[in-house]
Amino acid sequence: MPLKEKLLIQRIRRTALRPGNRRGHGIGDDCAVLRIARDREALITTDFSLEDVHFRSQWHPPDSVGHRCLARGLSDIAAMGGVPHAAFLSLALPQDLSQKWVDRFIAGLLKLAARYSVSLAGGDTAQSPDGILADVVVLGSVPEGEAILRSGAQPGDFLYVTGTLGSSSAALNQLRDGKTLRPRSHLKHFYPEPRIAIGRFLREKRLASAMIDISDGLSTDLGHICEESKAGAVVFAEALPAHPGKDGLTLALHGGEEYELLFAARPNRRIPKQIAGVPVTKIGEIVRGKQMKLIKLDGKSEALKPAGWEHFG
Amino acid sequence: MPLKEKLLIQRIRRTALRPGNRRGHGIGDDCAVLRIARDREALITTDFSLEDVHFRSQWHPPDSVGHRCLARGLSDIAAMGGVPHAAFLSLALPQDLSQKWVDRFIAGLLKLAARYSVSLAGGDTAQSPDGILADVVVLGSVPEGEAILRSGAQPGDFLYVTGTLGSSSAALNQLRDGKTLRPRSHLKHFYPEPRIAIGRFLREKRLASAMIDISDGLSTDLGHICEESKAGAVVFAEALPAHPGKDGLTLALHGGEEYELLFAARPNRRIPKQIAGVPVTKIGEIVRGKQMKLIKLDGKSEALKPAGWEHFG
Repeated sequence: MPLKEKLLIQRIRRTALRPGNRRGHGIGDDCAVLRIARDREALITTDFSLEDVHFRSQWHPPDSVGHRCLARGLSDIAAMGGVPHAAFLSLALPQDLSQKWVDRFIAGLLKLAARYSVSLAGGDTAQSPDGILADVVVLGSVPEGEAILRSGAQPGDFLYVTGTLGSSSAALNQLRDGKTLRPRSHLKHFYPEPRIAIGRFLREKRLASAMIDISDGLSTDLGHICEESKAGAVVFAEALPAHPGKDGLTLALHGGEEYELLFAARPNRRIPKQIAGVPVTKIGEIVRGKQMKLIKLDGKSEALKPAGWEHFG
Repeated sequence: MPLKEKLLIQRIRRTALRPGNRRGHGIGDDCAVLRIARDREALITTDFSLEDVHFRSQWHPPDSVGHRCLARGLSDIAAMGGVPHAAFLSLALPQDLSQKWVDRFIAGLLKLAARYSVSLAGGDTAQSPDGILADVVVLGSVPEGEAILRSGAQPGDFLYVTGTLGSSSAALNQLRDGKTLRPRSHLKHFYPEPRIAIGRFLREKRLASAMIDISDGLSTDLGHICEESKAGAVVFAEALPAHPGKDGLTLALHGGEEYELLFAARPNRRIPKQIAGVPVTKIGEIVRGKQMKLIKLDGKSEALKPAGWEHFG
């Protein structure tokens, strides 16, 4: 095993005995062993983060890459109303990558993990033929039968989103235009916050009939809810909590990597205006049929097509 | 989403509702949802399979690559005495890869999965900048507290291996020498069989004190048992079930990707000569100290250093 891999495994192992790793003998064995409490179901999600597809080394500092890798999986757990427990990091690194990059990457990942009491419980390492490749698995759980699926929306349900939409892709557009951004001034893009507390709240209060996180863009992710729920949807442009600035509406509709939650709720459910300090906005409703429609600012309607962001590969 | 990814996800989704996927609404949602039976613990393992590191397209037919990707994880579950339930496939593909390659890859993976009632319950897809990248996660379970760890061996325990050792790396050496091999004549290399039934038998009968699968080579994997158990070991060269042929002993000691089980058992445990139709051979014992020793064919002893196989990258 090359030295870098050995160091990485030692580092992961040192951090693997945090609270959240229920048994603590996972790493260094053939499998991680984790207890799922009685009456709960396991949630598992897996996300690739590939250099030049999901991040760029010249744009994203290593701790941001580590944060973003894990945030993708945590956001999926949030979207089911779940609680995250453990993460698994498979990491393939080019031979010439500096140890410092790896250290800062792991630090960024672990800092986010610690905030949600998630242990890094295992993974794999390899030498990459080209570019940095990470695959992050997150294991969470939810009380039996209470996971909030994409398929539960019904005509008449209202649609809500958390936070604001468009600022992550606005930052990405600036990076594409060659601008240098201070990561701390564009947190939504460099250090997105998974909406774990909101997902959990909605599940505990039984407020949401269907939910998804906005990773590919509102139009695409709403399309998933419609497809799985066998329904259509209407979105009101004037209601969208769009990030102000150039192309605000377009980015709010189609911008990816927002990691906000999009959910449907029966019309008789009272949805708080804020949950866990984050604004929640009604943006439309679920309707019969299969079509998605946008009611534009001028009151006219047009078809809303899934046109979400597809990475920058 | 590019067409190839879409097709891949549709294909995975069609196969995702097999027995073993307890809920059946995993794929197509943000996370897979799986029930872990009461009084059982979850086992999770994750393995990269990278083109030109773990396989070569000119050597390995696509169904062999699919089989091997999954076999690595199933073998880890076997090494804990566990039962596999579900697999998750993250797959990054170069744009110019044929759909036929992908179809045959998935077919190879699913054929092995079906044999162990494992459902393909989720995953991720991406476009790869260079080469085929797969990361396979396997979720299994084991009754609470019964996972067979690497750390349970004690001085005086005997050491056993299943099957024969060295034929996988013998085939690899022939491939390296430019020979063309018929995959069906070299099953150990192209279609290794994870020892699920044996691992489960040893756990149910409480026969093994420590266990690991031989993925990196006997010398390296025995080293892991010694390190985790804080003990040393003696191996008898004449006892090794070495594949006959050139360098048989060296390949048996250090050859990787055998996916046989190496386990320790208290001296009073009666270990069957065969389990699930596979021979089981006593090859040495656990001793005090930290050293690993090889008793050579001439009766002299020498230090046994971990010198296992490190892929062909």
